[in-house]
Amino acid sequence: MRQVLANARILPMDAGMREIGRGWIALDDGRIVSLGEGDAPSDLGAVQDMGGDLLMPGMVNTHAHLPMTLFRGLGEDVDDRLFRYILPLERALVTAEVVEIGTALAAVETIRGGVTTVADMYYFEDRVGSVLDRAGLRGVVGQTLANFEAPDHGSMDEGFARLDALADLYADHPRITASAAPHAPYSTDLAVMTRVAQWSADHPGLPVQMHLAETQAELDWAQKTHGCTTVEVSDRAGLLTPALVAAHVMYPGEADIALLADRGVGVAHNARSNGKAGRGIAPVTALRAAGVSVGLATDGPMSGNTLDLFAQMAPAAMFQKIAGGSRKPLPCVDVLRMGTIEAARVLGMDDRIGSLEPGKQADLIRISLDDPRLHPIYDLTSALVFAALPSDVRGTMVAGHWLMEDRQLTTMDADKALADALQVAQRFRARIEEIDRTKT
Amino acid sequence: MRQVLANARILPMDAGMREIGRGWIALDDGRIVSLGEGDAPSDLGAVQDMGGDLLMPGMVNTHAHLPMTLFRGLGEDVDDRLFRYILPLERALVTAEVVEIGTALAAVETIRGGVTTVADMYYFEDRVGSVLDRAGLRGVVGQTLANFEAPDHGSMDEGFARLDALADLYADHPRITASAAPHAPYSTDLAVMTRVAQWSADHPGLPVQMHLAETQAELDWAQKTHGCTTVEVSDRAGLLTPALVAAHVMYPGEADIALLADRGVGVAHNARSNGKAGRGIAPVTALRAAGVSVGLATDGPMSGNTLDLFAQMAPAAMFQKIAGGSRKPLPCVDVLRMGTIEAARVLGMDDRIGSLEPGKQADLIRISLDDPRLHPIYDLTSALVFAALPSDVRGTMVAGHWLMEDRQLTTMDADKALADALQVAQRFRARIEEIDRTKT
Repeated sequence: MRQVLANARILPMDAGMREIGRGWIALDDGRIVSLGEGDAPSDLGAVQDMGGDLLMPGMVNTHAHLPMTLFRGLGEDVDDRLFRYILPLERALVTAEVVEIGTALAAVETIRGGVTTVADMYYFEDRVGSVLDRAGLRGVVGQTLANFEAPDHGSMDEGFARLDALADLYADHPRITASAAPHAPYSTDLAVMTRVAQWSADHPGLPVQMHLAETQAELDWAQKTHGCTTVEVSDRAGLLTPALVAAHVMYPGEADIALLADRGVGVAHNARSNGKAGRGIAPVTALRAAGVSVGLATDGPMSGNTLDLFAQMAPAAMFQKIAGGSRKPLPCVDVLRMGTIEAARVLGMDDRIGSLEPGKQADLIRISLDDPRLHPIYDLTSALVFAALPSDVRGTMVAGHWLMEDRQLTTMDADKALADALQVAQRFRARIEEIDRTKT
Repeated sequence: MRQVLANARILPMDAGMREIGRGWIALDDGRIVSLGEGDAPSDLGAVQDMGGDLLMPGMVNTHAHLPMTLFRGLGEDVDDRLFRYILPLERALVTAEVVEIGTALAAVETIRGGVTTVADMYYFEDRVGSVLDRAGLRGVVGQTLANFEAPDHGSMDEGFARLDALADLYADHPRITASAAPHAPYSTDLAVMTRVAQWSADHPGLPVQMHLAETQAELDWAQKTHGCTTVEVSDRAGLLTPALVAAHVMYPGEADIALLADRGVGVAHNARSNGKAGRGIAPVTALRAAGVSVGLATDGPMSGNTLDLFAQMAPAAMFQKIAGGSRKPLPCVDVLRMGTIEAARVLGMDDRIGSLEPGKQADLIRISLDDPRLHPIYDLTSALVFAALPSDVRGTMVAGHWLMEDRQLTTMDADKALADALQVAQRFRARIEEIDRTKT
């Protein structure tokens, strides 16, 4: 079980943002034991030469709908895609089997893109969990609860029963964590949110995930129905706790931001998904200034197209610079934090993952810096944020196991995942054509 | 000389946005002779099987400073980088030899990223041209004219002499086109711009490139010095003609946009560079609605980090959607046009390049759509704009010659280009450290 990764450039993402030009990391039983500069000590385990490649923490995707790989890019540039495509297609076509197939395709992309932990919210999450488990990934699997006709529960009681079963299923799993995922304030309402808050109190350590302050319609709903902001409704329900991962948070007011900070809520920032939706720029700078942890996220591939965080880093940075009218906001080092240690904090897992430090899980990625496109490198963080690609990730390790080595997957069959997905997509395509025929 | 590329998915980027699911393209003497669906006719030349990969026009980068690869990502997140780093470093260190080395590194990245034509403006452009020529690329090489201390001319007369020499050197070149590149209105002023306009009138067919309406400081200069907008100053000089490629155009007023449209000026849109600078969102939607052709561009790698247009497409789309508050602005098909046929129009070359049509130059790229990350593909344009990567480009052809096949370069030595660049960067690094020591 003891191994040493040697001859590596290392960016541990520790508090001091140390960079090790050439060093080593010793692992034992899936954890990091020690790391240092220079040649690896000879007595720490079998040595694997990293050939000068970069080792950094595996990235942490704080918000996704993995099975939606099967809807990738559908309804691009169309404003009413939720009601035109997503809801009808999900009701008609999303089954446990479909979820499993979509998640397998997602797991392939996740591993190849250098993400080692992903927080998911969708339906049939036991199937999402089983695929992530088989893939060797670390995951938070969130049972969606929604008062619209959901593919896996007809009533809230049924939804909570699924949630309890999920919590039981993964109670002792080392990598998969169950989670409650109320869809959004407007699609659950106060009573259900309150019930989730109670469930959360009864299940310490399990995250709660919810879309929050994502659209103007949601804000209007809160004002009309409860006479306050959607963040305040969530607080009334008792949902604003450190367990909550609030996705999007596009339109919080100043008081909302203070409330989120005070309650220790973490935020999942979906830069590309938000940008593509034309929803404006999330106040990431203000949230972080107030002390709110913000993690990068991909959202589902129907909205964000891809599941790697390299695609999110440059947009996240650019949006804040545009909003701030300067090059200074959200510098590269902060963007990288939001993809690693700060994202881990959002999920309440920063004691275990998010940085390469002794005692933490050996969740790391090996990035080749060989491509001429990256050079010269005056600043490693700039190269990673603005020039590196998911295709530069050469190896992905979770809990000491390589899930990919030299671009070859060790746990997943990419060809099968793709073939299965394309078969499902054929069925979807027929339904999509029907929609386009009837709704013009 | 006759060859047929067969068994290809083809996106010709013609006016009707036809897509060919499986077809062929026949080439002769570096031009496209014909193309069609199904199996290739047997009598048109030697057949090369594309294995179902996508063929589309090579991308056209309408604005770059190629040798600035050597400054890649320098001064990231720093507002005063122009005066702190760029100008002092260029004055001290940029020589003809340095330009050649920086351009070689840029050519490698350009070919590997699927760009077949690039419009450059920098110094020692004869060297830029010689490298692009050797690389087999198509290029517009723009002699910068500026009233600050430039690395290759101490006076305007000297600058114009270099420009004339450049025009002579490439007068009959099939792929390299000389160009005048007044730096910007504020850094040349009316007299020099007028002289460039005269030069342009004397040299039909040669583009003029200029940074225009890029910064608030430039707008203030125009108002203070000439009592009008910077676009209007340029018009007084006679520079606003179809020959002009105006880079950035961040802050045109309504009258400016009408003027640019009326004069047939083309605009180079540098989404990432602008976003990273925090300069706001260029009014691309309004410019195009007024009839101005807008092409995608990378800017120099110190500002934009990379030289492929895949990195520009998603930001260009997202910025317009954010500004417009909807998913609809700048749909995928328009983004692709801005990277191909519309970009060719900006450079005045749309009669020769920018789409795959009989009679046009055989400038095309072969893109592998094999990666699971791209699938399912419900809409090819969405996959290209929001999911494809430069690493998906498998082959790059200019005028019928493959500059890259199966990711292997045929004209450039990537290892040598990188090694030479890293050596120069070492010299730069010493000077950068000196700057950081003295200016804190």
